[in-house]
Amino acid sequence: MNRDYLFKQVYDYVLHRIELNEWKENEKLPSIRNLAAEMKVHRLTVLKAYQHLKQENKVYVKDKSGYYVQSREINKFESLENPIVSAYVQKNHLSEIHQVPVSYQFSQALIDPNLLPNRFISDYVKKVFDLYPKVLSTYSTVQGDHELRQSLSDYFNQHFKTITHPDQLLITAGSQQAIHLIAQAFVKSRDIILLERPSYSSAIDIFRAQGANIVSVDIYPYGYDLDQIEFIMKKHKPRLFYLNPTFHNPTGYTVPSAQRKQLVQLAEHYRCLLIEDDAYYDIFFDQEPPPPMYTYDTSGMVIYIKSFCKYVSPGLRIAVMMNGQSSVMKSLLAVKSLADNGSPLLNQKIFLHYFSSPRLQQHVEKLRIALQIRKEIMEEELSVTDWQWTSPNGGLNLWVQLPDRLSTEDLLVKSLEQSISFVPGQICDPLKEPSSWLRLSYSYANEEQISEGLRKFIKLVRSTQ
Amino acid sequence: MNRDYLFKQVYDYVLHRIELNEWKENEKLPSIRNLAAEMKVHRLTVLKAYQHLKQENKVYVKDKSGYYVQSREINKFESLENPIVSAYVQKNHLSEIHQVPVSYQFSQALIDPNLLPNRFISDYVKKVFDLYPKVLSTYSTVQGDHELRQSLSDYFNQHFKTITHPDQLLITAGSQQAIHLIAQAFVKSRDIILLERPSYSSAIDIFRAQGANIVSVDIYPYGYDLDQIEFIMKKHKPRLFYLNPTFHNPTGYTVPSAQRKQLVQLAEHYRCLLIEDDAYYDIFFDQEPPPPMYTYDTSGMVIYIKSFCKYVSPGLRIAVMMNGQSSVMKSLLAVKSLADNGSPLLNQKIFLHYFSSPRLQQHVEKLRIALQIRKEIMEEELSVTDWQWTSPNGGLNLWVQLPDRLSTEDLLVKSLEQSISFVPGQICDPLKEPSSWLRLSYSYANEEQISEGLRKFIKLVRSTQ
Repeated sequence: MNRDYLFKQVYDYVLHRIELNEWKENEKLPSIRNLAAEMKVHRLTVLKAYQHLKQENKVYVKDKSGYYVQSREINKFESLENPIVSAYVQKNHLSEIHQVPVSYQFSQALIDPNLLPNRFISDYVKKVFDLYPKVLSTYSTVQGDHELRQSLSDYFNQHFKTITHPDQLLITAGSQQAIHLIAQAFVKSRDIILLERPSYSSAIDIFRAQGANIVSVDIYPYGYDLDQIEFIMKKHKPRLFYLNPTFHNPTGYTVPSAQRKQLVQLAEHYRCLLIEDDAYYDIFFDQEPPPPMYTYDTSGMVIYIKSFCKYVSPGLRIAVMMNGQSSVMKSLLAVKSLADNGSPLLNQKIFLHYFSSPRLQQHVEKLRIALQIRKEIMEEELSVTDWQWTSPNGGLNLWVQLPDRLSTEDLLVKSLEQSISFVPGQICDPLKEPSSWLRLSYSYANEEQISEGLRKFIKLVRSTQ
Repeated sequence: MNRDYLFKQVYDYVLHRIELNEWKENEKLPSIRNLAAEMKVHRLTVLKAYQHLKQENKVYVKDKSGYYVQSREINKFESLENPIVSAYVQKNHLSEIHQVPVSYQFSQALIDPNLLPNRFISDYVKKVFDLYPKVLSTYSTVQGDHELRQSLSDYFNQHFKTITHPDQLLITAGSQQAIHLIAQAFVKSRDIILLERPSYSSAIDIFRAQGANIVSVDIYPYGYDLDQIEFIMKKHKPRLFYLNPTFHNPTGYTVPSAQRKQLVQLAEHYRCLLIEDDAYYDIFFDQEPPPPMYTYDTSGMVIYIKSFCKYVSPGLRIAVMMNGQSSVMKSLLAVKSLADNGSPLLNQKIFLHYFSSPRLQQHVEKLRIALQIRKEIMEEELSVTDWQWTSPNGGLNLWVQLPDRLSTEDLLVKSLEQSISFVPGQICDPLKEPSSWLRLSYSYANEEQISEGLRKFIKLVRSTQ
């Protein structure tokens, strides 16, 4: 009999059992061997059916022990009720978690609005309208407002002794758009790219949506294994390496200076673009981190992404990309011009005026202290457990390992029921393996919510073990 | 000898002659037959080399009479000086023309900032900050501000007797982002899509960048040939038809009611999404145009894109997409969440408050009169020529045919030298054939600039003939 027909039979059979709730959430499916015997088909046919169901998120794999029925809480994000047209869509995993409103918000690596300079910025906005009365009836250039690019490059050149020209900057709608533009310009289906493991989940989703083949390198508290990176660059010739070397998301680790220099040399040698996402540089607690890789780059191999706005005014959605190679900038400009033809001028002008004011520095200094206190409260609560983490010197997150190989994906559903959110490690894993790691952000919840929420959460985990 | 090697030889030989200026701008290249004989290679090898050079915009084809050396003015947009990494980039043709500053701006289908309500909007902005003090420290949801979506759907439901729910709306960064999101969600390499001929040049570039195979249908002053559309839908099963049926860009034509209904039925029958870009609906001169196709859609086959902001405050970059099918909206949301994770909240709130005010209607009424006057001035100037156009009843553009099969691509370079810009027809042609048509926008230049600029331009064209 036709193999496709048999596959369809097995597939329908399993799906039907799940939909009738005969096979229940988180219950183990029959082994491939047993179902193949029962349905009198080849084992590969069952494997193929299971894999299709896994792709469709109807079932999942656990610790090599077999296939399990996916829980409906996760499933409901997925179901496309009788789509009339099919779409080519990659999920944004993080965005889906954030759609669930909770009382104890530990999944968003965003800063509590109460810690942001709302009132000062309102004043600047009025100033902006006096200075540029036609700001709302004018488009920005695709590359971004020249005055803002000048101001940002001046800041960089002063602070890091670089020689960046305003033409080497491109203003984007947040760092996420920057990553998205880079993916569109430099990655096509089946191209190999390199990511840290773990990595920023939205970046994983963006590169996956472009069809990239992802190779990953582990990041450790002391940085990378550079021999491994060189081996991969030599063997796979990745088009780019997306990395976040300063207060890395989700781990909080920082790659030391010496490795930064060497990595830029490797990138030059193997013609691999380094995409340095530097969202957390200024959120340090004790001392300023080592200079960005971008500052060691002499041949345009680093595209540097900086989202100052995360800790100034996330609502403006302004980030900047920098690169010294005119052909790279030209490509990024072409993609940006198709994507939205330039970021709104108003937002750029508002940001410019706050960025150039002395208020910014005062605000950032206060913010560092507030966040350090929140981090310490979170660590204090966690100190009663035997969970593992490396205390970060900056950034917004703790990267925590639960004991007993507890899957944090499973835990999330129970946790959301108790109105506590976090990011399960699997979402941050380019290989998407089940994981006992999780990311807890201490930046959004206030001190009281952190204490209360963590106590509830610890209790929940203990009851699950 | 290896064929690739021979191709490279021919390619290098031709390119070298051009770069040394031995073969000059707009000079005819040797015929394929002659060069093949001279270099002792197969004619297909020469053809391949010429085609590569054409793709790289080093040469162009004219009226089937052969290959010509591209002029440097056009070439300079292109050259990637020794790129260290290759990029996958589609040009944005329109964006490149706009990069040249001119005194007589007829290429931008934008509204003169002096016709926009700058002062009123500034007042609304202050109100917005009083109402939402934390607007700059908060992200919008991916789908867009709920209050704005409610207000837009109320407006639609009242005006067109539709029953659109706020959840069927998605706020984007201008209509260009809307098209870009749709392309990403529904078009993959080699998928067939349908475009009007001519069409909006940025849309052509966006779908081309996705690797679409473009099939086109002509648009006439009285609409489409629906038999041709049905034939194409039947034969090619296009995934979508991007169209602009009201004061069409660039032609200004409007598709009549009866055709709108029939087209929605065809789309349902052949499962082809209609992407209705409706940027110009409210810019009518004598009477309101027929209702959008979206209002005839009962099964979610139409994705409606509306950019109110074009004539309110282009600087805000706000547009809205509507669709009644939840699976379509779900796919668009997933793509939007990867692209920029939601448009800035500030811009949405500013727009909301202006949109809900009675001022908007007053402004639009004045704007219609001002634009009609500008259109009439432009037509008055053109009346001394034997150029052809159909006078539009709304929108921002005249679509004009020059006599004697004059190529408007060639004309553009000379025109820019005299500080006059326009959009050559070839850029609006999905098939990119040389054309004697051009688009003249009467919305950006003021009345004096229109008169002066048109006189100079007519003189230039006559001197070229």
